Amino acid sequence: MTSQIASARAHTNIALIKYWGKKDQQLMLPMNGSLSLTLDHFYTDTTVEFNSIYTEDTFYLDQKKIETTKITPFLDLVRQMNPQAGFARIYSSNHVPNAAGLASSASAFAALALAASTAAGLNLTRRELSRLARRGSGSATRSIYGGFVEWQPGTSDLDSYAIPIDEKVDWDIEMLAVIIDRQQKKISSRTGMQRVVTTSPYYPAWITSTNQDLSAAIQAVKEHNLQLLGQLAESNALRMHALNLSARPPFSYFEPASLVAMEIIEKLRSEGICCYYTLDAGPNVKVICSKAESPQIIRALSTAFTPEQIVEAFPGPGVKLIEC
Amino acid sequence: MTSQIASARAHTNIALIKYWGKKDQQLMLPMNGSLSLTLDHFYTDTTVEFNSIYTEDTFYLDQKKIETTKITPFLDLVRQMNPQAGFARIYSSNHVPNAAGLASSASAFAALALAASTAAGLNLTRRELSRLARRGSGSATRSIYGGFVEWQPGTSDLDSYAIPIDEKVDWDIEMLAVIIDRQQKKISSRTGMQRVVTTSPYYPAWITSTNQDLSAAIQAVKEHNLQLLGQLAESNALRMHALNLSARPPFSYFEPASLVAMEIIEKLRSEGICCYYTLDAGPNVKVICSKAESPQIIRALSTAFTPEQIVEAFPGPGVKLIEC
Repeated sequence: MTSQIASARAHTNIALIKYWGKKDQQLMLPMNGSLSLTLDHFYTDTTVEFNSIYTEDTFYLDQKKIETTKITPFLDLVRQMNPQAGFARIYSSNHVPNAAGLASSASAFAALALAASTAAGLNLTRRELSRLARRGSGSATRSIYGGFVEWQPGTSDLDSYAIPIDEKVDWDIEMLAVIIDRQQKKISSRTGMQRVVTTSPYYPAWITSTNQDLSAAIQAVKEHNLQLLGQLAESNALRMHALNLSARPPFSYFEPASLVAMEIIEKLRSEGICCYYTLDAGPNVKVICSKAESPQIIRALSTAFTPEQIVEAFPGPGVKLIEC
Repeated sequence: MTSQIASARAHTNIALIKYWGKKDQQLMLPMNGSLSLTLDHFYTDTTVEFNSIYTEDTFYLDQKKIETTKITPFLDLVRQMNPQAGFARIYSSNHVPNAAGLASSASAFAALALAASTAAGLNLTRRELSRLARRGSGSATRSIYGGFVEWQPGTSDLDSYAIPIDEKVDWDIEMLAVIIDRQQKKISSRTGMQRVVTTSPYYPAWITSTNQDLSAAIQAVKEHNLQLLGQLAESNALRMHALNLSARPPFSYFEPASLVAMEIIEKLRSEGICCYYTLDAGPNVKVICSKAESPQIIRALSTAFTPEQIVEAFPGPGVKLIEC
């Protein structure tokens, strides 16, 4: 092999039932299963070129050269599968409506898994891609598939991967993302979840309750029951954030503006509109609702947020190869 | 007995290790022990007159006539102790620096316990007063004593009462209250804690961890260790609020402005100032600090809050009889 090149696109996903804590740091095995919705609007395009003339890995993200601290160990997994693959150049671009907040390691490592494995001449199944993506970032495990996706926690490298639950999503659901700037640097999700696992007295109960939520949420997806799915997602998200408050030392991803958005959604709901929120390891608030009611919700959010802060997103596809 | 009159003053208290949930609704027995600091600035004055000419109980709070729905069952307990006591007139006034937020059922029922029992000719010990006050409001159990107070949960009406831990508080500690207006009506503490007990999967772990916190916090008070006491209080408060987020349906007392105050305190701490916050069933943020450092903390809070919103308070005394 002298030069091999491939490009892939992967979309980010938002967890409705959360992954928060690992049982194996090395293999990135999660403590519990999770459920997500892959989104169309936010994606990463990545091109990988293995070339025998390169003497090291180099990585360009949005045309800026970046350290390969996280990339090289991931490429090493690909090189284990094909020892002929040498060093690589990686070009990545994040497509998010604006700079703040929604770029994600989920789309990044899902795109990298497909581009790198293809460039290395491997022809991995989607299940193998999901397992590979997992090693880069837990949430990337799910971005291999479109629509609603379950990540089965498994007990080893072999059986911890995602499966599609509803790839087409031919029912009325959308997501609104409220982009909230971070005023101060918060703890990374990797550090945060690890602190929770080791210090929160609530953690064992989180696992039990999330396993129950997961079964119920999968059933809600199958029944196209937006209200039940929303209730489960919002409660599960708040139980995750409750873990952070209960850690020692405690921490939180809520910003004042997050609470403003959450209160708007709760008020709309008290007025009969079916909408629910979720938050991840950051202040942005994501709202699950129907396409039919999203204009009203956007109008209510607009009393407190600018049009640039409110982004509509719809169910998106799984990872795929693209032209360079 | 024809007419008997007595007046009492009781101060409110702020729990540093929280009471959140009852094991007996009727007897008001708490699930766990708690620790509080009685404050000088916020108190209730109450006059009770039993008079054989009265044909019903009447209650005036801050010169306004109020329903006796909560008062009459409480007075019935006093009338059980002295069946000669008839109906009563009660005049109560709350002394709080401004209208919003800090009036408390703790000072109300502690003052009522002493005034009513004295007017009824009873000469109760402080322990008996604490047990009686408990029947009106859980937190009133602690307002019988000044300074640092522990409420021992007990297993029956007889052994659930407060004991003084450090009544004089002759060391350097004060509290700043940041008064935050409530934008919308939130759930009452009685309803909130009951929902938590019945629906939060985290509740059993809360009891275990709070019992540990309580022992450690009492030790910190005895050692005059402000930093350790503050750490325990802040973490315990956040674990209580985490319970609310984990209930079904979830609820929260945090307002956006609460987070603003909390972030200011966290930032000051990162700069080396010893200050910690706690929150109860409302949006107000109370800060524990030393008198020496409070001017700096007030200055930092003043960037986001008006002078009227920031109130200084110091350790206060237990309930006592006063002139009418």
